[in-house]
This record gives sequence, structure tokens and C-alpha cells, in this order.
Amino acid sequence: MRKVCIVVGSRANYSSIKSAMLEIRNHPDLELQLVVGASAVLDRYGAAAEIIARDGFEAAARVYMLIEGENPTTMAKSTGLGLLELPTVFDKLAPDVVLTVGDRFETMATTLAAAYMNIPLAHTMGGEVSGNIDEVIRHAVTKFANLHFPACSEARDRIIRMGERPDAVHLVGCPRIDLVAEIVAKHQNAPASDLFEEGVGGEFDLNKPFIMISQHPVTSEYGSGEMQINETLLAAQKIGLPALVFWPNSDAGSEDVARGIRKFREHHDDSRMHFFKNLPTETYIRLMMRTSCIVGNSSSAIREGAFIGTPAVNVGSRQDMRQRGTNIIDTDYDRHRIADAISQRLEHGRFASEPIYGDGGAGKRIAQILAHCSLSVQKRMTY
Amino acid sequence: MRKVCIVVGSRANYSSIKSAMLEIRNHPDLELQLVVGASAVLDRYGAAAEIIARDGFEAAARVYMLIEGENPTTMAKSTGLGLLELPTVFDKLAPDVVLTVGDRFETMATTLAAAYMNIPLAHTMGGEVSGNIDEVIRHAVTKFANLHFPACSEARDRIIRMGERPDAVHLVGCPRIDLVAEIVAKHQNAPASDLFEEGVGGEFDLNKPFIMISQHPVTSEYGSGEMQINETLLAAQKIGLPALVFWPNSDAGSEDVARGIRKFREHHDDSRMHFFKNLPTETYIRLMMRTSCIVGNSSSAIREGAFIGTPAVNVGSRQDMRQRGTNIIDTDYDRHRIADAISQRLEHGRFASEPIYGDGGAGKRIAQILAHCSLSVQKRMTY
Amino acid sequence: MRKVCIVVGSRANYSSIKSAMLEIRNHPDLELQLVVGASAVLDRYGAAAEIIARDGFEAAARVYMLIEGENPTTMAKSTGLGLLELPTVFDKLAPDVVLTVGDRFETMATTLAAAYMNIPLAHTMGGEVSGNIDEVIRHAVTKFANLHFPACSEARDRIIRMGERPDAVHLVGCPRIDLVAEIVAKHQNAPASDLFEEGVGGEFDLNKPFIMISQHPVTSEYGSGEMQINETLLAAQKIGLPALVFWPNSDAGSEDVARGIRKFREHHDDSRMHFFKNLPTETYIRLMMRTSCIVGNSSSAIREGAFIGTPAVNVGSRQDMRQRGTNIIDTDYDRHRIADAISQRLEHGRFASEPIYGDGGAGKRIAQILAHCSLSVQKRMTY
Amino acid sequence: MRKVCIVVGSRANYSSIKSAMLEIRNHPDLELQLVVGASAVLDRYGAAAEIIARDGFEAAARVYMLIEGENPTTMAKSTGLGLLELPTVFDKLAPDVVLTVGDRFETMATTLAAAYMNIPLAHTMGGEVSGNIDEVIRHAVTKFANLHFPACSEARDRIIRMGERPDAVHLVGCPRIDLVAEIVAKHQNAPASDLFEEGVGGEFDLNKPFIMISQHPVTSEYGSGEMQINETLLAAQKIGLPALVFWPNSDAGSEDVARGIRKFREHHDDSRMHFFKNLPTETYIRLMMRTSCIVGNSSSAIREGAFIGTPAVNVGSRQDMRQRGTNIIDTDYDRHRIADAISQRLEHGRFASEPIYGDGGAGKRIAQILAHCSLSVQKRMTY
Repeated sequence: MRKVCIVVGSRANYSSIKSAMLEIRNHPDLELQLVVGASAVLDRYGAAAEIIARDGFEAAARVYMLIEGENPTTMAKSTGLGLLELPTVFDKLAPDVVLTVGDRFETMATTLAAAYMNIPLAHTMGGEVSGNIDEVIRHAVTKFANLHFPACSEARDRIIRMGERPDAVHLVGCPRIDLVAEIVAKHQNAPASDLFEEGVGGEFDLNKPFIMISQHPVTSEYGSGEMQINETLLAAQKIGLPALVFWPNSDAGSEDVARGIRKFREHHDDSRMHFFKNLPTETYIRLMMRTSCIVGNSSSAIREGAFIGTPAVNVGSRQDMRQRGTNIIDTDYDRHRIADAISQRLEHGRFASEPIYGDGGAGKRIAQILAHCSLSVQKRMTY
Repeated sequence: MRKVCIVVGSRANYSSIKSAMLEIRNHPDLELQLVVGASAVLDRYGAAAEIIARDGFEAAARVYMLIEGENPTTMAKSTGLGLLELPTVFDKLAPDVVLTVGDRFETMATTLAAAYMNIPLAHTMGGEVSGNIDEVIRHAVTKFANLHFPACSEARDRIIRMGERPDAVHLVGCPRIDLVAEIVAKHQNAPASDLFEEGVGGEFDLNKPFIMISQHPVTSEYGSGEMQINETLLAAQKIGLPALVFWPNSDAGSEDVARGIRKFREHHDDSRMHFFKNLPTETYIRLMMRTSCIVGNSSSAIREGAFIGTPAVNVGSRQDMRQRGTNIIDTDYDRHRIADAISQRLEHGRFASEPIYGDGGAGKRIAQILAHCSLSVQKRMTY
Repeated sequence: MRKVCIVVGSRANYSSIKSAMLEIRNHPDLELQLVVGASAVLDRYGAAAEIIARDGFEAAARVYMLIEGENPTTMAKSTGLGLLELPTVFDKLAPDVVLTVGDRFETMATTLAAAYMNIPLAHTMGGEVSGNIDEVIRHAVTKFANLHFPACSEARDRIIRMGERPDAVHLVGCPRIDLVAEIVAKHQNAPASDLFEEGVGGEFDLNKPFIMISQHPVTSEYGSGEMQINETLLAAQKIGLPALVFWPNSDAGSEDVARGIRKFREHHDDSRMHFFKNLPTETYIRLMMRTSCIVGNSSSAIREGAFIGTPAVNVGSRQDMRQRGTNIIDTDYDRHRIADAISQRLEHGRFASEPIYGDGGAGKRIAQILAHCSLSVQKRMTY
Repeated sequence: MRKVCIVVGSRANYSSIKSAMLEIRNHPDLELQLVVGASAVLDRYGAAAEIIARDGFEAAARVYMLIEGENPTTMAKSTGLGLLELPTVFDKLAPDVVLTVGDRFETMATTLAAAYMNIPLAHTMGGEVSGNIDEVIRHAVTKFANLHFPACSEARDRIIRMGERPDAVHLVGCPRIDLVAEIVAKHQNAPASDLFEEGVGGEFDLNKPFIMISQHPVTSEYGSGEMQINETLLAAQKIGLPALVFWPNSDAGSEDVARGIRKFREHHDDSRMHFFKNLPTETYIRLMMRTSCIVGNSSSAIREGAFIGTPAVNVGSRQDMRQRGTNIIDTDYDRHRIADAISQRLEHGRFASEPIYGDGGAGKRIAQILAHCSLSVQKRMTY
């Protein structure tokens, strides 16, 4: 019975790994050891821990590792704090393998703790190119990982080119698309009446055209967040459609973006804007199924967007070089060019589904491989 | 005036970067910001901080980051502690670039602190392949670094193949060889009379054949250190030559190796063995110039050994795949095979110098590049 | 020139020491070294750091030490983090004396850092009895302090009875009353027109009767915060006057209290309630000068209330045994008894000023003593 | 079944609480939760953890909290690290009461963790007066403790005078004397032949007169340790008897004292000196039963010395004002006065037993009280 330890650090993290968690828990040869930490245990980041518990997963440990401040210094120190905390957890749980997700600061802490403690490390969503500190973290985690679960073929190829052994690299798709596929199937023709249950602000008819705005800080452009979101909000205003606006994640600079949103609301009419903090994945995907256009720099526009066929405008450098479908149009931080791009998308309408990031079976594949592969902390470059 | 911050974390670290420190300090367009930390500030690891001060370098900060325990858990946590401490230092010094050395746990902490704080990162000795957790740390640091200073051509090629931009990769040689070249020149015909001033134990004629034993823990083989060093010591005993024995570094498992040495001394005649903790680089190199054979798993046998031409037996996996000269013969942890390998080296005698890891000009090249290159935290994979 | 280091950890902390900071900065024999940390550097706790900067004080260091979570575990760990951070600051500043304020978790971290580092420690507001973990922290700090600045005579007597040398105990009054005295003088007949500039919610005529509600979590009653605030809010509703409601401080359990407020707003009419996060001290005192009654468990009702003469209802155990004036009436967590007590206060109206906690000259006295007293880390019990 | 958690942080700590641990483990209404940490888990401080395990106690958690450096800064930071680690342990163990021992840095970390987490705290050896930072820590812990177990009547009286409720203060004696009483009974007429099994250096006849030297750093006199130990060693040399010398504990300044010993050995004949790092309590007590005089500043001379009747010279301020028996003579750091004092003790010979610090039944009393007392985190000053 192999013990697979997963550290879930945020609400987004959770939906990126949930289907794998389910499959691992249900696999006869695997035992799931769940650790919930970082922003996932904090109310003001959506209390993912409670959602996870409601979904029937029991946490073996809760780890508080976020040092308040939301600037580059506290982000580095939070990683340090995570690295003081996680070894205690791994000592206690003695996992056979640690499965880490993506590219966040708690991913790095999880990775280093496992590596120093000689615990084999598996990694989902490696090999992707995006820009931002996320990308360097992601590639660094690849260099530590003993088992790779890339989400798309380009990512797989990139991991192998980086010197990882091909037999340790398994193209499985993104587990988050597993959830998306389920939701899309379930809500194909469902009504939208409940979609304003969360959030605050104006409400409008979700059967008519509306846009979604989801824009996060770019850590390598720390200090520009307020200007960046402002351009997007002004563009949206110019288009004139009602809008759903999402508060930023907790990366360094999030306070700048949040301030930008607050100031916009103080100086402009926000009666046709509705504001969300964190939404259940299901609600979010249902909104992506309906929106006329998603604008900002969220990876969801590219990843889930490709599967769903959501028209999307990607702003700025945060998603640079991420593999995209035809639903994406790129632009820089300029209200006019953003508005133009939105107009183009509105003209086109919905796109056909492109399963670039998975076909719905990622979780099952990950569990199968974890159950049967050989595990070792020894690794060698292939060149 | 560019501010270049260097974090020196151990005595070995110091001699790997000293010549670059000198050239940076003396460069009209550069300012050296020296941080001394980890084992470099601790008496029982050779008090490198004092040596550095005597060499005329002033430390802008001292950082205590070693949590006692010397096991995998405390090694991970020490990295975490470093990551809590170093951002404070970088906040205060506001360097234009951080130059980090090699592949140790403080290298990782330095790297992450710089990366999160959007400070461009330069890295020496990247791209080498060795086995052990050192290797994965080294490659992970490469993925964070914005500027690469590999020591040998194979390492340069490997860094580029890993997706780094060729114009950010500068083959400069190893700064440690700069020191070695100076020492070799100075002591070509010097007497050995002072070489027993440090250390404890038996003394013998260093003009006659003797061997050197320098064997460190292999972190991925945690728990085997006592057996490993024991095999080497038994092999040396069988050869019958007097021996210089070096205590291990502070990696996880060092207590195992140290215990192996202590037990050997309790149960065998150690009257023709002399024990060193840390030696000045100069003394160490002079001993490498004289020894009939160096045995163990120290990288010095391969790197400095190639330049000096020292006959060497490399034991076990710690240096696997590191580029070697003809002076090296490899063996596994077996007293008989180690003894056979030593015999072969004794028969051959000294080798010709092979400047695989540098020609003595690394420090000067590094300073030149740091002074004139463009610096940015933005980086992109080449594929 | 004596260097006096003060660590300001919250907005309340700042107003408790500001007048001493001014006098120390202006004293010819003293140099002020200001450290801003804990919640004082965080936007969501009122960004005291920015207010301090606007007041013309330059921070020698900023320290992030709050681990998110707001539960007993993170509160303990935040103290630990403070104790990892503050020694670095004290190493750099090398103060002759550290002056610490009151009884919060950062007070404890400041105290321990100074004590271990052999820096003489002065302490304001010691010797008071209040209930809650604040009290034990306060007395423990007294046992570490080398110089005591109690605010009232009972506190002075208590410090001496605890075994402190009488010549190290100086009754100076509370520096916060210095500010209050200034504000009261300035605003005796000022209009109230600007008092709704901050906060959110309903607005009403502040020249007519209104009540103030300020209730914080009681750390030793962790888990009951939601019930406690609910009783108070229901009592206020029953009275029927408009109310100013203050969000709780960041002690363990603050999330409970905040949830209680949020739920009350969801289920009751809050149109005649106005909600404040953190107010400038001046605004707060001006409100205390006007309110018909302050309700809750804030120490301000007792301390500033005595000086101003504000009618007050103190709820629950948080202020047990704190020396009170005639303006206070005590009650437990029961909506009916709280409502009765408010009614009694409304009947009485304003009280005469009682300067129990100071006469406006505390800061000047503290600076004088710090400039001229002998400083030593040696201390002995008197019995 | 009450869960009693004890954090053992050093070898000395262990022998100060061992008899209580035994009684708690054997009590039908109590469950012992043992945490081993700080220097107790480190080989170079005597590996108390292994001794504890051999004694049959199972550790529920091991906590590494010592940051290397042994200076005031790292001592403060080690407390901070302990405070990051211990809450995790208490979260997991959920003890009904934490029992903490004495006055060391891990005692402070244990105390704060329990206090913040609302766990009732019991404290042994409070109320004693000694000088040094130990004393202020001890009194501060008293202010946090909910249950007090002083070792002597003066300490009990002092705790009560400090404002603690008399019914929370239980005079039980020192648990370490329980062990001493056993050892004294067992070895009254035993031979000394095995007493040189540990340590290094000269050996001599332990049936003839010899002295013992045990001198620790005084943290408030940081930097003077080398001079202080040197005076004592010169005095001992002048007396001319063979000597057992103990290496110092790990308090700030220990490196100074150790250097003093090393330098003395380099410059003087040490052939009649034997050096011990850490000894089993039993061996140590047997030596105290035999020695002609114990010299230095160890509390053992005063506490165990009173019970055993060992002639003793106490040097310097470390034990100032600790209650003493007639066996003690005090002196300052002066080789001549120390030598005179030793001579006086040699003339007098053994003293009668004075059970000032206990009669051998402390552990049993502590267990009884812990099993039956009411436990609460609420506490109030008595004045």
C-alpha cells in the first residue's frame, strides 16, 4: 500500500489536483495522505480547507505558512516558513511519494522538503512555459521531481529536452480538465439563476452577453499592478457590457491590483459590475461556458478556455508562451487595444472545444502510474 | 556602480569564489557586498568567516542558518531558516545582482530569496553532473539563474541544452582553479615541513609516499555513511601507507561518517593516521601536490586533481558522471576493490596537468561580465 | 547619546507610545531607533506604518512577523517568528535600551530578544491587572524589564510588590493620555461633520445620542467570540440608538468576532450602524467625547474614558480588575443585562474627568528618565 | 485520564524531571506525553534522547530547535524556532497540562506555546533566585504558570509574594534530589574503579583527594568566559590536586569557556586533569560523593551538594542569592581567592546532609497533584 502525500496550498491548487485525489483515494494499492496549507487554510482566500473537508477528504495535517505582507520579501519568507513546517509533517506521515502541484511558493517548499528528506517526488503540470516567477519555479521543481505528469504534449517534450528520463515523463493531461469535463457535461443546458449567490455588487441577466475579468499581479513587474488592472477595467467600461470581476490571487503585488479595483469603483459607475473573491470551480466553469469573453491574465482562459471554447483576451506577459488554442487573442496593457481585442472576440462568438490540456482522464492515469511505477530518489540527467 | 552580493556559506564555498571576490572588489564599476553564513560562521566547521576577514574582506552581514541535527529533516529546515533570514539581508543591501556558488543548501536559499525578490541571479559551477542531492539543487539553481558561469565546456553545453539562452551562458572556468594555479606555482619546490601544524594524530615524512582520504556523506544514501567510510579506511590500512584523513562536511549523514572514523580509530592502530577538520586551501593543495593517491569521494580529486595531476581513486556514487581527467579511477564501496584501485594509482605516479576546470582566469572573467552584461530577471526557455 | 529602540507593533501600540517617541526624538541626549512590525506594517490592520511615516518618524527597520491564521497556534508561532526577526534588527541597531509597550505578542518577542541579547529593557504600562493572556504577558515582561514606566499608582505598587526594585519603577502616567489630553483640548467645541469620512454603512447625526461598540476576542475564551459580540449587538439593537461598530483587533479569535458581526448584518437591519476598521486616534477620541455610551470590552472605555468622562458599559472578563473610574458599569455576556446597563449610562450622561491613567506629561517624563537613569541588564529580586 | 506533556530539552533537564516522569507514567490517572528537543536530541550535548529511550520512555515527538552559533543572537533565535515548532507538537498531542522544567530557553518556548494555546502550565523549580538570564526566565515562567512546584520553602514563599495564588503553589522538593537520594543510598560504599570510563585525559586514584571543576558561561557577562575559567583553572593548579574538568553547557558564551579550557591545556601540564563532556547523573553524583571539593558555578554544588554534603567553592555571580547550605563558600573570579577558598574546604572535609532541596519524594508528590488538582488557564494576581 503506497502512501501518496499531496500538499494542497490554495483553492486553485485543489481544483488542479482534486480528480487525482479522488482516484488515489479509491485505488486499492494507494493511500492518500492529504496536507492542507498556505492560503488553503485561510478564510480570506476562500477557505479551501472547508470545501475539501465537505468533499469528504480528511486532512492529515494543516500547515499555516503564509507570513502577512504580500510583498516579495514575505513571499520568500513564507516559502522559508513552509520549509520549516513541512519536514515535520513528512516526518510524521512518512509518505512513499509526495505529489506536488504546479508552480506556487508552497510547491517549492513541498519540493525542497521532499528532496532533502529523500522522498520521491511526483509533479503535475510541469514543463509549461508562461512567464513570471511561476515558470522558473515550475522548471526548478522539474529538476527535483522523480516522476513527471505533464498536462500537454509540448510540456512533455520540453521536460524531456531539459534532460529528464523519458520513462519518468507521463503525458496524462491536466486533472483540472477532468472536473471541467464533468461540469460541462452536467450544465450543458442548465439555467443560470443561481450564479449570483456569491460575491457582491450589481446583478444582471446572465443569459445576455457579459464579460469576465480575472487579472493577477505579475511578480516580475511588481509595482505595476494598479495600472495594469486599471487599463483592463477601462477597456471593459468602453465595451459597455456588464462584467464579472475577480479579486486577484495572493502573489506578491496582489494588494496593488486590489487597490486598482477599489479605486476604479470609487471613481466610476460600478453598478453593472459584480465582484467575486473565490468561486466554487463549478460556478466558475459555468460562467466560462456563458461569458461572451474572458479578459485578463488568468491561465483558466487558456487551459479551461480551450476545452470549453470560451472567447478570451489575454493581457500582458503573465501567460507568455503558454500553449494556446484558437480561442485566445493576446494584447498588452493598453485600454484601447484591450477593448479592440474584446470586440473581435465578441464578433466571433464561442469556439469549438480543443482538448489541448486533457480529455478528462488525467486523475485516473496518475493514480495508475503512482500505484505501479518504480520509485526512487536517484535521478540522472540524460545528457 | 553595480552592487554584487555574494553569500559565502562554507569554507569550501569560499575557496570556490575567492578569486572572483577579489576581482569584483577591485573592479572600478563593481561593489562587492559580502554575506557570510551557514557553516562559514561556525567555529566547528573551520570558522571561514575569520579567514575571510583576515583576507581583508568585510562582511556586510552574518547569517546563522544552521539548525543542529545534521539529518535530512534539519537540512531541509536549515534551508527554510536561510530563506527567512536572507530576504532581510537583501532588503537591506539592495544588490543589483546576487552571485551564488555551486550547489549547497545555502545556495538554494540564496537562489530562492533572490528570485522571489526580483534580483537578477548569477550562478557559478552550474551544469555539472555529479549524483547526490547536490546535483538536483545545482540544476534547479540553473533554472532560476539569469546569468551562468559554468566551469567546463560540458557543463556549458548542458546548461544550454536545458533551455537557457546561450548568450546568458559564459564559460569562464572554476574560480577555485585560479587559487590552485597560484598555489601550484608558488610551492612547486617548497619543503613540506609545516604541513602538520594543524590536525591531530600521527605524523610522518611527507616526502615519502602517503595517501589522503576525504569521504563525505551521500545524502541519497543516508544511513550508509559509517559502512562506506569503513570500507575506505580498511582499504587504506591494507595498502599500508600512512594516511591523512579528513572529517566529513556537514551534509545530512555526516554524523554517520564521523562515527565510522571514530569507531575505526577505537578498533585499529591509527598511529600512522593524521586527522584534519578543515585546512587552509593552500595547505590542502600542497598536500594534493605530494600525495601518492587521494581516495574517497571529494570533488577536489576530480577538479583540482585534474589541474594538479594527482592520482586519485573515486569511491561510490557521489561524483557519478562528473567530467574527469585521466588521473581518476572509479570504484564502489568495497575494501578490496578500493585497495586494488589505490595500488594501480601508486604504480602510475603523478599525471600531467589537464585544465578541464579552468586555466586560472575565471575570477577576472566573471568580474568583467558582471560589470558589462545587461541584467534582467525576465527569462524565457529557448524551446 | 543614548540609542532608544522602540518596536511599534500595531496602530493601538503607536498611540500608546507616540508622545514618548516625540519626546525621545526631541531630547538632546537621546536618539530614537524606530522599528515598525507585526500588524503595524499591514494594510488590513490600518497600515499604522504609513501614519507613523506621515507623522515624520523614520523607521530603521520593518518587520513582518504575522503568520496568517488568527488562531492560538499561529499566535504562538507569530511570536516565534518575531523572535527570529528581531535579533537581526537589534544586532544591526545596537540600541542602548529597548523600550517596549504593553502586553501584546510582539511585546513578548521584543522582550525576549532584548533579554537574550543583554540589552536593557524598559517597559510602559506594566503592573496592570486585566484578565486575558495580555495580563500574563504583561507581568512576564515586568520580570524581564530593567526599567518600569507604569501608568497608574496601583500598577506601580503591584510592580514593586512583585519584587522589582522601587528605584527602577517610575510612575509616569500613560503616554496615550498625553494624546488624549491634546485632542480633548483642541476639539472641545468642534463640529462633528467630518467624522463619517472613514468606515462604511449608515450615517446619522452625531450631535444626537448614539452608542459605540468595540468588542475584541478574549483569548482565554477562544471559540466564544461570535456569541459574545452577538449578545452585545442584540442589546444595542434593543436600545434603538444608532451605533458605531468597530471591527475586532487581530488576537486569536478575531475571526469569530468578525463572523458574528457579519452574520448580524445579514440577519438584521444594519442601516443605522456604521462600521469602522481602524480610526485615527483623533477621530476615535472625538467620538468618545460625543457618544452617549461606549459598549464592549475595549480598554479605551476604562483608560481614555476616565479622562474624557465617557459613559461606558464593560462586557465580560477581558478588563477584569483593571482600575476603573466611576464612568464604568460592568456586565456579563447577556443581551438583557447589557441593555439594562446601557440604559443606566444613558440616564446619567457625561462624567467628570478622572486622570487615573495620566495627566498629559507621561512622554516627557519617560524621555527624561531614559536620558539620565543608569542602565544595566543585571537585576535582582528585592526578596 | 489526564495527558501530561513534558518537554525535555537537555541532559540536565532530564535528570531534573526524571523521577516525576516515572511517577506520571506509572500513575493510573495520568498519561505521559514526552517531547524531546533542543540539546537533548544532539549528539554533541550528550544525546540525552538516547539515554531517555534506554530508560524506557518513548518520545511522542523530537524537536530540533537549536540554531548553531552559541551567541546571544542565536540563543534568542533558537527560542523563536522552538516557538515555531512546539505549537505543532501541542496541536498534535492536545495535552491537558504541560509540565515545564526550570529556566532554560526551551522552557521559555514551551511556556509561551502552552500559554498562547490555552493549555494549563505547571512549572517545577520556580521561585529560586540565582542571577543570570536563567533567573528572569524562571520568574517570567512563574507569571505564566497555572500550577507551581517549587523545590524549597524560600522559593515557595517567593512565588506567593510575587502574586500567585497560594493554593496553586505546592512545595514538593526537587525531583532531581529523588535520583540523588537513590544513588547515594546505592553507592554508599561502592568502589570507584569504573568512574574513568568516559571522558579523556589523565587518570588518577579516585580514592585519594581530587577536585571537580564545573564552570558555565554567565550570559549577562558575555565575553568574559575565557578569563573566568582561566582563573579557576590556575587556582586548581596552585592547589596541586588532580582535577576532573567538565566542559561548559550550551548557553551563550560557552565557546569562550571552552576556548579557555583549550588554551589552558595548550600552555600548562594537563596530565593530572581528566575532561568530561556529559556524564550520566549517576556517575556525576558518585564523583560528588568522593570529591574533596567542587569548584565553579554549577548549581549542582549548591543543590545536590547540600544533600550529599560535598565541600564546594562557588565562583562568581551565576548562583548569587540561591539558597545554600553550609557546604558552600563563595568567591569572585580571582585565582588567589579561589585557591584560598578551596584550601578552607579541604581542611573541613565532608558536611552533614541538608535536605534543603528535597527529601526524595518530589516526583510522587507532583504526579499526585497533577492527577487530582483542578486545571484552568485562568489566573489572577492576588493583589
